Amino acid sequence: MNKVVAFGEIMLRLSTERHLRFSQAKEFGASYGGGEFNVCVSLANYGINAEFVTRLPENEIGASALKEMRKMNVESKNIVFGGERLGIYFLETGAGTRGSNVVYDRAHSSMATIQKGSIDWEKVLEGASWFHWSGITPAISESAAEACLEAIKVAHKKGITISCDLNYRSKLWQYGKTPSDVMPEMLQYSNVILGDIDTAYFMLGIPKVNPNYQDEKSLPVLYTKLFELIPNLKIAASTLRYSVSASHQRIGGVLFDGKAIYQAAVKEVTPVIDRVGSGDAFMGGLIYGLSEYENNNQRALDFAVAACCLKHTIAGDYNLVTLKEVENMLDGDSAGLVSR
Amino acid sequence: MNKVVAFGEIMLRLSTERHLRFSQAKEFGASYGGGEFNVCVSLANYGINAEFVTRLPENEIGASALKEMRKMNVESKNIVFGGERLGIYFLETGAGTRGSNVVYDRAHSSMATIQKGSIDWEKVLEGASWFHWSGITPAISESAAEACLEAIKVAHKKGITISCDLNYRSKLWQYGKTPSDVMPEMLQYSNVILGDIDTAYFMLGIPKVNPNYQDEKSLPVLYTKLFELIPNLKIAASTLRYSVSASHQRIGGVLFDGKAIYQAAVKEVTPVIDRVGSGDAFMGGLIYGLSEYENNNQRALDFAVAACCLKHTIAGDYNLVTLKEVENMLDGDSAGLVSR
Amino acid sequence: MNKVVAFGEIMLRLSTERHLRFSQAKEFGASYGGGEFNVCVSLANYGINAEFVTRLPENEIGASALKEMRKMNVESKNIVFGGERLGIYFLETGAGTRGSNVVYDRAHSSMATIQKGSIDWEKVLEGASWFHWSGITPAISESAAEACLEAIKVAHKKGITISCDLNYRSKLWQYGKTPSDVMPEMLQYSNVILGDIDTAYFMLGIPKVNPNYQDEKSLPVLYTKLFELIPNLKIAASTLRYSVSASHQRIGGVLFDGKAIYQAAVKEVTPVIDRVGSGDAFMGGLIYGLSEYENNNQRALDFAVAACCLKHTIAGDYNLVTLKEVENMLDGDSAGLVSR
Amino acid sequence: MNKVVAFGEIMLRLSTERHLRFSQAKEFGASYGGGEFNVCVSLANYGINAEFVTRLPENEIGASALKEMRKMNVESKNIVFGGERLGIYFLETGAGTRGSNVVYDRAHSSMATIQKGSIDWEKVLEGASWFHWSGITPAISESAAEACLEAIKVAHKKGITISCDLNYRSKLWQYGKTPSDVMPEMLQYSNVILGDIDTAYFMLGIPKVNPNYQDEKSLPVLYTKLFELIPNLKIAASTLRYSVSASHQRIGGVLFDGKAIYQAAVKEVTPVIDRVGSGDAFMGGLIYGLSEYENNNQRALDFAVAACCLKHTIAGDYNLVTLKEVENMLDGDSAGLVSR
Amino acid sequence: MNKVVAFGEIMLRLSTERHLRFSQAKEFGASYGGGEFNVCVSLANYGINAEFVTRLPENEIGASALKEMRKMNVESKNIVFGGERLGIYFLETGAGTRGSNVVYDRAHSSMATIQKGSIDWEKVLEGASWFHWSGITPAISESAAEACLEAIKVAHKKGITISCDLNYRSKLWQYGKTPSDVMPEMLQYSNVILGDIDTAYFMLGIPKVNPNYQDEKSLPVLYTKLFELIPNLKIAASTLRYSVSASHQRIGGVLFDGKAIYQAAVKEVTPVIDRVGSGDAFMGGLIYGLSEYENNNQRALDFAVAACCLKHTIAGDYNLVTLKEVENMLDGDSAGLVSR
Amino acid sequence: MNKVVAFGEIMLRLSTERHLRFSQAKEFGASYGGGEFNVCVSLANYGINAEFVTRLPENEIGASALKEMRKMNVESKNIVFGGERLGIYFLETGAGTRGSNVVYDRAHSSMATIQKGSIDWEKVLEGASWFHWSGITPAISESAAEACLEAIKVAHKKGITISCDLNYRSKLWQYGKTPSDVMPEMLQYSNVILGDIDTAYFMLGIPKVNPNYQDEKSLPVLYTKLFELIPNLKIAASTLRYSVSASHQRIGGVLFDGKAIYQAAVKEVTPVIDRVGSGDAFMGGLIYGLSEYENNNQRALDFAVAACCLKHTIAGDYNLVTLKEVENMLDGDSAGLVSR
Repeated sequence: MNKVVAFGEIMLRLSTERHLRFSQAKEFGASYGGGEFNVCVSLANYGINAEFVTRLPENEIGASALKEMRKMNVESKNIVFGGERLGIYFLETGAGTRGSNVVYDRAHSSMATIQKGSIDWEKVLEGASWFHWSGITPAISESAAEACLEAIKVAHKKGITISCDLNYRSKLWQYGKTPSDVMPEMLQYSNVILGDIDTAYFMLGIPKVNPNYQDEKSLPVLYTKLFELIPNLKIAASTLRYSVSASHQRIGGVLFDGKAIYQAAVKEVTPVIDRVGSGDAFMGGLIYGLSEYENNNQRALDFAVAACCLKHTIAGDYNLVTLKEVENMLDGDSAGLVSR
Repeated sequence: MNKVVAFGEIMLRLSTERHLRFSQAKEFGASYGGGEFNVCVSLANYGINAEFVTRLPENEIGASALKEMRKMNVESKNIVFGGERLGIYFLETGAGTRGSNVVYDRAHSSMATIQKGSIDWEKVLEGASWFHWSGITPAISESAAEACLEAIKVAHKKGITISCDLNYRSKLWQYGKTPSDVMPEMLQYSNVILGDIDTAYFMLGIPKVNPNYQDEKSLPVLYTKLFELIPNLKIAASTLRYSVSASHQRIGGVLFDGKAIYQAAVKEVTPVIDRVGSGDAFMGGLIYGLSEYENNNQRALDFAVAACCLKHTIAGDYNLVTLKEVENMLDGDSAGLVSR
Repeated sequence: MNKVVAFGEIMLRLSTERHLRFSQAKEFGASYGGGEFNVCVSLANYGINAEFVTRLPENEIGASALKEMRKMNVESKNIVFGGERLGIYFLETGAGTRGSNVVYDRAHSSMATIQKGSIDWEKVLEGASWFHWSGITPAISESAAEACLEAIKVAHKKGITISCDLNYRSKLWQYGKTPSDVMPEMLQYSNVILGDIDTAYFMLGIPKVNPNYQDEKSLPVLYTKLFELIPNLKIAASTLRYSVSASHQRIGGVLFDGKAIYQAAVKEVTPVIDRVGSGDAFMGGLIYGLSEYENNNQRALDFAVAACCLKHTIAGDYNLVTLKEVENMLDGDSAGLVSR
Repeated sequence: MNKVVAFGEIMLRLSTERHLRFSQAKEFGASYGGGEFNVCVSLANYGINAEFVTRLPENEIGASALKEMRKMNVESKNIVFGGERLGIYFLETGAGTRGSNVVYDRAHSSMATIQKGSIDWEKVLEGASWFHWSGITPAISESAAEACLEAIKVAHKKGITISCDLNYRSKLWQYGKTPSDVMPEMLQYSNVILGDIDTAYFMLGIPKVNPNYQDEKSLPVLYTKLFELIPNLKIAASTLRYSVSASHQRIGGVLFDGKAIYQAAVKEVTPVIDRVGSGDAFMGGLIYGLSEYENNNQRALDFAVAACCLKHTIAGDYNLVTLKEVENMLDGDSAGLVSR
Repeated sequence: MNKVVAFGEIMLRLSTERHLRFSQAKEFGASYGGGEFNVCVSLANYGINAEFVTRLPENEIGASALKEMRKMNVESKNIVFGGERLGIYFLETGAGTRGSNVVYDRAHSSMATIQKGSIDWEKVLEGASWFHWSGITPAISESAAEACLEAIKVAHKKGITISCDLNYRSKLWQYGKTPSDVMPEMLQYSNVILGDIDTAYFMLGIPKVNPNYQDEKSLPVLYTKLFELIPNLKIAASTLRYSVSASHQRIGGVLFDGKAIYQAAVKEVTPVIDRVGSGDAFMGGLIYGLSEYENNNQRALDFAVAACCLKHTIAGDYNLVTLKEVENMLDGDSAGLVSR
Repeated sequence: MNKVVAFGEIMLRLSTERHLRFSQAKEFGASYGGGEFNVCVSLANYGINAEFVTRLPENEIGASALKEMRKMNVESKNIVFGGERLGIYFLETGAGTRGSNVVYDRAHSSMATIQKGSIDWEKVLEGASWFHWSGITPAISESAAEACLEAIKVAHKKGITISCDLNYRSKLWQYGKTPSDVMPEMLQYSNVILGDIDTAYFMLGIPKVNPNYQDEKSLPVLYTKLFELIPNLKIAASTLRYSVSASHQRIGGVLFDGKAIYQAAVKEVTPVIDRVGSGDAFMGGLIYGLSEYENNNQRALDFAVAACCLKHTIAGDYNLVTLKEVENMLDGDSAGLVSR
C-alpha cells in the first residue's frame, strides 16, 4: 500500500496509575492518543507509510503531542495549528467488576473548532491509497463534521479507499445534532466500515435489531441492508467483545464482504492491562489485512482480532506490536512464553 | 438516617507496592485506615452523615490522619488528643498462592491508652441514630475495651441502634484477657452483629460448630442461639468468603433476622487489587442497607455483598464508591464496561 | 548440609515496570540476578550456608552486585575481580498473550572472559558438601566452559555432590561450539540434573523424543538413558510447565531416582508477577529437599514445585520466601489468606 | 476574626516533576489550587474559619477538587455546581536561569461561565467578617467579573472588610475587556489591596510610574493616589520580589496604611522548591496579621513576608505551615535546623 | 585496627520525598539507620571490620533491618532478638528556611526494652580494639542505659578504646531521668568524646559556658575541665556547624588532645541532600582517622570534616563513600567535577 | 543553513535519580544520548535540518534509540544496522562537593565495531552544508576512527564545513592508540574546533601550555599555533568552565577566528540539574550561531554560552530549549521569572 492518511483528534490522556480512583491520584500518567491517530500508529508499526492530519494548539502541550507523533513514526507534516487547547481525556482504569471510566474534557479543543477549508486536501491526499476517519470527529462539533466531510469528498473523488470506524460515544454529540442527522451523508462514501450492526443502523437512522452474531444465517441479511444504504461499501466488520469483567475480555470478530460472512475464533484476553485503543488496534489490523492479504478476508479478519487481543496487554492508547508479533499470534503462539 | 457515630482506631497503613515483599521495599505507600473508620467512609460516600470518634497523638502523624478524615468527609469534631503515637500496620500485598501479610505495630497507641471517661458520650451521641463499634477495640487494650463499653452503654440508654463487627484478630488480644472474658458484656447491647457464627460463639464462650452456610435448614438454629445470648439482637449477618487465591475471591453473604435466612448470590472477585477493608465495606453496606432499604433485608444484604466486591478493586482501606456505583452492580452491571 | 557452592554469572537486570514495552520505558528497574546465584539465594533463605563464586568487574556496578549478594546472605569471599563489565539482561515483562522478552547484553562480561585457573577450587570447595552449576556458563564463552569444567572436576575429586540445571538458552551459544560439543564431558560428573528429557538428550547429542510426562510407564526408559550416559547420575528431575498465558502457568514436576518415577501435583499459578528465576527456585528447592528430606524424594520434589510456584508471585530473580512459607504451601495452604 | 469568605476559581494543577520540561513528562503531578483558595488554606492553617465559594463541574474531577478542599479544612458548603469543566493549569517548574512556565487551560471552566445571581451572597456572607477576591476572577470572563462584583457589593453593604489581591496575569483578560474597563468599579469597595503600585495604577487606568520601593519618601505620595481613587481603602501592600534566578529569590514587603510606610527586612529564599502560590501565602499572612495583630501593621507585614518565604519551600500551591512555624521564623529562626 | 564494635539502636526511617510535608506524603521512603549503626557503615566503607550489636524484634521489619546491615557489610552475628517492635523515626526533609523535622516513634522498641545481661559482652568484645556508643542509648530507656553501661565496663576492663558521641536529643529522655543523672558514670570510661563543650558540660551536670570556638586561647581551658571529670579521656572533638539554612551548611571541626587544639578549615556544603547522619559520618571519620593516621590528629580531624561534608550530599542515614573519595576531598578536590 | 550531518555514537544512558549513589539505585532513568547526537537535537530545536548517522544493533534497545531520534526530530534515514549491542553509560549524579560519576560500558558496541565502507558518504552528504564529528569516535575503536576519517574526507572533498568537538575522555582510548597517533590527520580537515587549547595541543602531539584565558594578549599566539597545524581551520573556540561545586558552575567562552579574540561574559549556573551534554549544547549553539549570525562571531559565541547555561537546568543529555528561549537569555533575561 502506498500511504494511509487519517484525520481526527489527538488528545492528552491523563490516566490514574495502578487502578487508582480519580480522587486518589496524586499524579496522572500523561500520554497522547485518539482513535484515528492510534490507527496510524498500528500501521506505522507494521511498516506502512501512515500520516495523521489534525489541528493542534500553538502551545507546549500541542508541541508535546507533535513530538509523540514523530516518535511513533507517523507523518505529521500537514498538521495545521491554531485554536485554544489540546483536548483532554481523563482515564480511571478499572479492575474486575469495576469498569474503567473516561471523563472527556475535549470541548473547545483546536480540533473541535477546526473549520472547513483549513486543510488543502487535494495536496494532502496526493499519492494516498487509503483515507481513514471515524465517528468521533462528527461527534465533537459541527465544524469538525464539515471539515471531515470535505476530506471524505476529496478522497472519494480521487478514488482512494475510505474506511470509517463508527465509534459511537454517548458522552459526545453535545452540539445539537444527532448521528442520524450527520452520518448518513458522510458514510455514503465509505468502502470499509467497522462497527456493530446496531450502531450502523442507529447512525443511519433505522431501527436497531439486536443481531445475534453467532447466527451466521441472519447476518448477511442484516449487513446487506448497510450495503444498500451505503453505495460504496465493500466491507463491513465488527469487533465482537464479550466482557467477563474489566480484567477479562473475550474477543472475536465478524466480517461481511457483500458475499460471505467470516468469523474469527474468540480469544481469551486476561488480564487486561489497558483496553482503551483496542478497537483502534482492530481497525489498524483490518486496514493492514485488507490491503496486504489481498483476497484473503479471513486472514485479514484474524489479523485484526489478533492485533486487538495483543493491544489489551499494552499500556496506553497504541498497539505497540510489530508485524511479526501479530503474525506469530495469528499463527497460533499465544502461550506467552519467555523469549530468551 | 440521622447520623452514624463509630468509635475505634485509625492507623497509619504502610504498604509495599506492586506485591513487593517487605525486604524489597524502598518505600511504603502511606495511607490511613482502621475498621470502624473505614465503615464511616463507606457511609459518607453513600451520602450518610458519619462521624468518627477516636484518640489521636498530638504530632504531625496524627494531624495527617485528621486531614485524611476530613478529605473523606467524615466528621471528626469529637476526637480527643493525647498519648504517644498513632498505631501502625504494615501490609505486604500478596498475589496468587502467596497471601498478604499484616504486621501490627499498634501497641501503646493513643487509642490503646485511651481511658474510660475521656469522651463525653452523652454529647457526642446526641441526635445520632446508629452507633458502630468492632471487636478490634477490646482487642487492643483493657482500657480501650472499657472506654468502648462506656460508649455502648450510653448509646443503648439513648435507644440508638448498635452494630458490631466481631473482627477477630489473632495477632491482637495480647493484654491478658480473652474475647470471652470481655465480649459477652459488650455484645449484649448489640442490635446488629456481623461475623461468622463460629467467631460469635467463640467470643461468647461457647463451643464452635463449624457451620455449613449452604445448609439453610441448620442455620436458623445456629443463629437463634446468638439471639438468645444477646437480648437486643435483631440482625446477624456474615460475609461468606471463599478464597481461591490471594488474587481470586468469591464473595457471598448470609443474614438472619430472627425469622428468616437470606442468602446473597456468590460473586467472583478477580483480580483482587486490595482486600483489606473489604469486610468493613460489607459492614458499611449493611448499615446503609438496613437503614435505607427498610423491610427489605434481602436488598440490604445484596447491597453489602456488592459493596464488598467493589472494595476488592480499590487500593487502600476505603471503599471509594458512590451509592450509584453499588446500586448499578446490585442491579446487574458487573461486566466492567468502559464508561465513555 | 554443610555448605553449597555455586559457580556462575550474576548480571544486572534491567526490567520495564508495569508491563511496559521497552520503547515505553523511561526507567528500568535495576536488580541483580543469574541462575546459579538465584539458587544460592533460595538456599540461604532456607537457612543453608550458601556461597557464590563468580568474576566481577572492578567498578561501581560490580560493587553494587556485591552488596546485593551480601544483603541476600550469600557468602562472596571467593569472588575474583577483573574484566571489563558486568553482564546485563533487559527484561520486558509480558502479560496475557504477550510473552516476556529477554534481551541479553552479556557478551564480553567479566564472567565470560574468566580463564581456567583463576580460582583456587581446592580451597574454595574445602568443607563444601554440594556444588552447583548450570548450562548457562558453558553457553557464554569457551573459557567460561573451561573454568567451569575445572571446578566440576575438583568437586568430583572431593566427593562433593554435583548438580546441574541444564538451562538451555537459544540466544546464547554464540561462540562457535554447540551444547553437544561441550556438555557431555561436563555433565558426566553430575549427580543431580534438572531439565526436561529432550534438552538433556539434545545436550548429550542424541535425538529428541518428545516425551509424554503423563505417561509414567515410558518415562523410566527415557530417563534411564540419561543414567547410562552419565555414570554418576543419581537424580534426574524436570519442572513441568504448562503455559496458559504469560499471566497463568500450571506447574508440576517429575523426578526419577534410577528406580522410581515421582510426580508432583500440578498447581495453578495466576497471576504471574514475575516468572524469571522460577526454574532456579525449583532447583533451589530440589537441592534443599534432596539434602534435608533424606530418603523422601516425593517430598523433595513437592518442595521444589511449591517453591517454584511461590517464586512466580515475587518480583525479581530471587525466591524471597522462608522455609516455613514453602512448607506451609507444601502442607496445603495455598488459598492466599491474609495473615493478621 | 469570625470567618473569612473567599470567592474565586480552583483549578486542577498538572505539574512536571523534578524540573522536567513538558515534552519530557510521562506523568504530571496532580493537585488543586487557585489564588483565592490558596489564601483560604493559609488561613485555615492558622486556625481561622475560612470558606471558599466557587462553581464546580459535576464530574469526578470536580469531586476530587471538593475532597481536597475538605482535606484542607476549608468550608465548602456554599459551592455551586454546573458547567462543563474544571479549569486546568499546566506548570513546568524551572530552575536557575530557566523560569517556570504556566500554560493556562482554564477557558470555558465552570467558574468562567458562572452567572450573576448563582450564589445567595446574603446568606453566604452572614456572620462573615472578611471577604477576599482577586484580579483573576474578572480576568477570566465577563460573567465571572459580574458575579464577583455582586459579591463585593453585598459584602460592602454588610460592612465586611474586603481585600483584593490585584494578581495581574497577562495570559488572561482574553474576553475583550481590559483591567481598566472592569477593575475601577470593583476595587472601589476594597479596604485592603495587595499588589505593586504600577499594577494598581494600570488597573485603575492611570499611567505607570515605576516606583522605587527603597525610596521611603516618594512612596506615601504614590500610595496616597490609590487612597484617593479607592475611597474605602485602609491598607495598600506590596510583596517585593527580587528574582536572582528561578531558584533564588529575595522577598521583602511594603505596606502603607494611609499614614505611615512599613518595610519588612528582605529575606533570602534559596532554593525555591515551588514559588507558585507564594503571593497567595503573602496575602493569607497579611489577612491574618491585619486581623490578629491589631494596631501592629509592622508585625502584620513581617508575618506576611515570613509566610511568603516559607511557602517557597513547599511543593504545591498551598502554604502548608502552622501559625507557630510562621511565628518562629518571624521571631528570628530561619537557620533551618533539624527539629529532633 | 582490629575490629570496631558499636552498640545502639537501628530504626526504620520513614522519610518524605522531594521536600514534601508529612501531610502531603502518599508514600514514605523506607530505609534503616541509627547513630551508632551509621558509624559502623562509615567504617565498613573505609575497609574496617565493623560490628553492630543491638536487639531486634522477630518480625519481618526486624528481618529487613538485618538484611540492610548485611548489605552494608557490617557484622551482625551478635544481635539478640525479642521485644515488640523496631523503633521508627519519621523524617520530613526541609529546604531553605524550613528545617527538617523528625518525629520519633521509638518508645517500646526492642532496643528500648533490652535488659542488662542480654548480651555476652565478654565474648562479643573478644578481639575488638574499639567500642563505640552514644548518648542516644541512655536517652531511650533506663534499661537500655544499664545495658550500655554494662558493655562499657567490659570494654574498659579489656582495655579497648571507648568512644562516645554525646548526641543530645531533647525529644528523648522521657523516662524520668536527666542526662546528668546517668551520663557521668557512663562517660567516665570514655577515651574519645564527640560533642560540643556545652553539651558535655550539661551532661556532666556543670553550667554551660557558651564557648567561642574561634577563640583558640580559651578552648584548652574549657576542654581541660572535661579531661578532669573524665579520667580516661584522650580526645575531645566537636563538629562545628554553621547553619545558613536547611540547604546550606558550613562545616568545621575542633579537636583537643589534652595538649593542643586542632581546627579544620570550614567548608561550604550546599545544597544539602540529606543532613541526617552527618554527625555520625564525622564520628566514623574521626574513629578512622584516630586509629589509622596515628600521631596525626590534624589529619584525623580533617578526615572527619571531609567525611561529614560528603555525607550531606547523600540520601539516607549512611555515608556511602569510599576511603578514596574522602581522601580525594581531604587532598583538595571539592570542585565536583564529572569523572569520565 | 541547508542541512547538518553528524556522525557518532548514541548510547543508552542509565542514571540514578535524585542524586542516589549507584549502590542505592533500585531503578535507573533510561534515556538515550551521545555527544554528536546531542548536537543534532540542539540544532533541530533551533529549526535546523539535522541528520544523525550511526550504527545500531538490530534489537529492541536499538529500536528504542531510533524512536528517540525521531521524537527529537533528527533525521535517521541513513543509519546502518548490525553489531552486538548499544553502548551504555551509567551516570551517578553528584551534588555539591561530590562530583558526578560516569561508568562507561560502551566497548563492543555496534558503533565501536563499525567498519570503513559501511556508509555511502557520497550519498549521505549530498546537499549537506555542515558535517560534525567529535574526538569520542576515534577514542572508542580503531575501526570507528577509520570510518570517521572516511566521512571527513568526503565532506572535505564536497566543500562542506567541518566541525569537531575535541571531547577528550580519559576513560576511553583503550585500544592501543593515543590521540596524537590518530587525531592530527583527522583534524587537519576541520574548519571549526571546539576544545580548550591544551586538549588541542595534546591531541596534536605538542606540549601543553596551561593557558590563561583571561589574558587576551597571549591567547592569539596560542590559538595561531592551531591554525598553523590545521590548514583549514577558521574558528577555534573553548567553553570556559569554572566548577565551584557539582551544583554550581560558572560558564564563559572564548573564540578566535584567526584575527580576533572574542570573550563571552561569565554566567552563574546554580543549581545544576544535569551538566552532562552541556558541552554539546555549547557546540550546537556555536554551529547555529556561526551559520546563522554571519559575520557576528561575538553573538555566535554568546549564543553558545547561553545555550550551554540553559542546558544545565534540563535533565537528560539534550538541550531541550527553543531558539526563542536561548535568544531571550542572550538578550538579558536570566532572572527565571514565571511566565503566566
